[in-house]
Amino acid sequence: MVTEEIKKQLRAAVGNEYVLDSEIDRFGYSYDSSFVSIADKNQPEVVVRPATTEEVAAVMKIANANGIAVTPRGTSSGRTGGSIPLAGGIALSLTRFDKILELDEKNMMVWAEAGVRTIDLYNHCAAKGLFYPPDPASWKYSTLGGNIAENAGGMRAVKYGVTNNYVMGLEVVLANGDIIHTGGKALKNVTGYNLTQLFVGSEGTLGVVTKVLLRLIPMPKVRNTLQLMFTELNDACDTIHDMLQSGVIPAAAELMDKISFQAVARHRKLDIDPAIAACVVVEIDGPDTAALDEQANKIKEIAGRHAVKEVRIAGSFQESEDIWAIRRGLSSAIGAMAPNRFGEDISVPRDAFPDMIRRIRKISEKYNLTIAVYGHAGDGNLHPSVLCDMANPEHAGKVHHCIAEIFDEALAVGGTLSGEHGIGITKKPYLVKALGEAGVAAHKAIKLSLDPKGILNPGKIWEN
Amino acid sequence: MVTEEIKKQLRAAVGNEYVLDSEIDRFGYSYDSSFVSIADKNQPEVVVRPATTEEVAAVMKIANANGIAVTPRGTSSGRTGGSIPLAGGIALSLTRFDKILELDEKNMMVWAEAGVRTIDLYNHCAAKGLFYPPDPASWKYSTLGGNIAENAGGMRAVKYGVTNNYVMGLEVVLANGDIIHTGGKALKNVTGYNLTQLFVGSEGTLGVVTKVLLRLIPMPKVRNTLQLMFTELNDACDTIHDMLQSGVIPAAAELMDKISFQAVARHRKLDIDPAIAACVVVEIDGPDTAALDEQANKIKEIAGRHAVKEVRIAGSFQESEDIWAIRRGLSSAIGAMAPNRFGEDISVPRDAFPDMIRRIRKISEKYNLTIAVYGHAGDGNLHPSVLCDMANPEHAGKVHHCIAEIFDEALAVGGTLSGEHGIGITKKPYLVKALGEAGVAAHKAIKLSLDPKGILNPGKIWEN
Repeated sequence: MVTEEIKKQLRAAVGNEYVLDSEIDRFGYSYDSSFVSIADKNQPEVVVRPATTEEVAAVMKIANANGIAVTPRGTSSGRTGGSIPLAGGIALSLTRFDKILELDEKNMMVWAEAGVRTIDLYNHCAAKGLFYPPDPASWKYSTLGGNIAENAGGMRAVKYGVTNNYVMGLEVVLANGDIIHTGGKALKNVTGYNLTQLFVGSEGTLGVVTKVLLRLIPMPKVRNTLQLMFTELNDACDTIHDMLQSGVIPAAAELMDKISFQAVARHRKLDIDPAIAACVVVEIDGPDTAALDEQANKIKEIAGRHAVKEVRIAGSFQESEDIWAIRRGLSSAIGAMAPNRFGEDISVPRDAFPDMIRRIRKISEKYNLTIAVYGHAGDGNLHPSVLCDMANPEHAGKVHHCIAEIFDEALAVGGTLSGEHGIGITKKPYLVKALGEAGVAAHKAIKLSLDPKGILNPGKIWEN
Repeated sequence: MVTEEIKKQLRAAVGNEYVLDSEIDRFGYSYDSSFVSIADKNQPEVVVRPATTEEVAAVMKIANANGIAVTPRGTSSGRTGGSIPLAGGIALSLTRFDKILELDEKNMMVWAEAGVRTIDLYNHCAAKGLFYPPDPASWKYSTLGGNIAENAGGMRAVKYGVTNNYVMGLEVVLANGDIIHTGGKALKNVTGYNLTQLFVGSEGTLGVVTKVLLRLIPMPKVRNTLQLMFTELNDACDTIHDMLQSGVIPAAAELMDKISFQAVARHRKLDIDPAIAACVVVEIDGPDTAALDEQANKIKEIAGRHAVKEVRIAGSFQESEDIWAIRRGLSSAIGAMAPNRFGEDISVPRDAFPDMIRRIRKISEKYNLTIAVYGHAGDGNLHPSVLCDMANPEHAGKVHHCIAEIFDEALAVGGTLSGEHGIGITKKPYLVKALGEAGVAAHKAIKLSLDPKGILNPGKIWEN
């Protein structure tokens, strides 16, 4: 329990105004952007907002000495409940860690604090012609620390990979208050274990990331967008598959099924052909317009072999933006379709993508629940959204079975539970199925080794 | 101690003929390709050669129950003593794990056993037009398991990265005999901690890797080689730097200093201009010869700005091979220059490469010891070789101070102890300097969590 004495110590560590315990503050730090219901029991006892690594270390020492839970938090854009303080204790906000510390143009790397917003980092680097590719949908408000905690992906992953492909080093405060530095600017590094990659995706359970060293690449000179419409979902999947096999690697290749596309069309009041069963949005980039034309023509030709109904190649920046607006509007359009929506984040081997969509269709029919499917077709990461009304006892009784079956099928085709959102709270029940008893035991052993009292983000990733 | 009773259990687990304890066998498994002297105390008590994961699990269960050290081993091509059984016990040879299990062309991935030789995997994939880029100098005899244990690099790292950039998943036997599977074919995966990357580079101290899932890329269509000669080392460094900044990313960019180049020239009886102070070998690849010509011309133009003395662009496959033969002959040519040679493997931020070479020159002068320097200039990974005669007390007294100073300077410019060979035995004394006390403590905690009895490859990475 966070006693008045402990609050006094916390105030001494970070300053009075950065220790918050009013009812409204505690409420404000009790939820995130996941489908976990808001509940009083998820409120922290106190919110602490340090601004320096030394302050974080001091907070961790106080927490560790008193066995108090600490849940690190950026801007709570997470989709699986990772930053919800399940065990009360301290909500540790990193939003004051908002400085970009060094842009090293020669080595093409950047040091930044964990609370910097993803888009701010992107813009800062882009101004110098350098490109930080990871672009989670939430990048306008998500922070680098959160991106690292959940190993955030995004639409550009098919060509450029996800967050962990860009993390070169970290400053981390451990549960006991020790400050460690992992990795560095050397491109090749086998000095000790790869702790950098152990922390990336560890969902705040192993340490508090305070600073990050990210690798950058040269900004592609030109970009363009294509929209492909199909009357058969399989044709859309086959087009994407053939495109990748042919060596055309788009910067993004997004697929929407009929339900998703119609939802966003209604939402945006677009007039669409009801025969369209799948819409694919492709972004291409390269060194010059000739390279773009070559890619666009090849994609058009491949789509033609798979009965594409309509190919639209954006003729201007504005037209590109219009096409992407459809994709970006998807999540809220689908959310508006039903009182409740459970959006998942399965990831399967690339060539299992069409099979996985067929399996989801069958599950939808079996449970008589609408499931909208869209996702990053280029890299096998799907977002099936189960639409339902939890006030309807019939729905409430079956929706979780339906979701469990989606996970079962994802594992059956060689896939996994999460591509870019993490396990957090919402996917805990399925972890043993994915990793096996021995695999989960290894996780728990590692967790215990770095956090013997279990104070860092308790209740996440696995069932206790 | 490995008693007769334990040997009986081991024979029952893997078969009589695969448990070896003759004097000659124990000697044969007591050394590797590092500069660690051969010594009786480094002999295993018994050599065990399992062929299946279940057999490895059975061996680990026997070892764990009896607190017996197990040192995993491929073909002992390691450069830092990683596979030397310092604590006696069991030398666990994985060479019977020699099968390539599945080449999945659609997903561009391959499952192979840990004892498969690197070059065999390369050739198997190349026959299908798929490319496994990591090419450690030892790739004709090194195994995948060893490559993973030390996170092996190679000459192509500048463009294609090192081993860990290609490892998608692992089958690992833990110290307690549990078999776990990490990662998988899903390109995006945030299900639990990134154990895959924790095991890569862990030098056999956390588990025994039995099977590996590797990512492949399309084979570049064409390749060519350039040789650039300079009369000033700085000009060579500046050329490489400007080339990378200009966006020309060669498949390899190797630099030899004057001492190295003259050594190999003498060794191969080549007639060379004594004014040459640095030789750079560059490999370029691409989709067609036009792309190669464009890269070659750009490199030539950049080198011209830095007073290049001679540019040779290979006109045939044979000429490429002749140029590469010089680079490949380096290590043995330098080894032949003195009774003893200590070859190191420091890695620094790319832009610190010229500065680091200057610092090594100063150390060489200070200690009056010859230091040949060559390395992967494109990625900042240098191999300084300190040449000496350990029978000469004056040399013996100062060589380790000289090496320690090289590590100090590497750390001072933001670099690290090892780029691609690991820490093993030879670099243990410097680990705390590189990672800090808290960093090393975190390593030890993780090690203990997965191997509570400390039976897996004891005595490596850090001082006890």
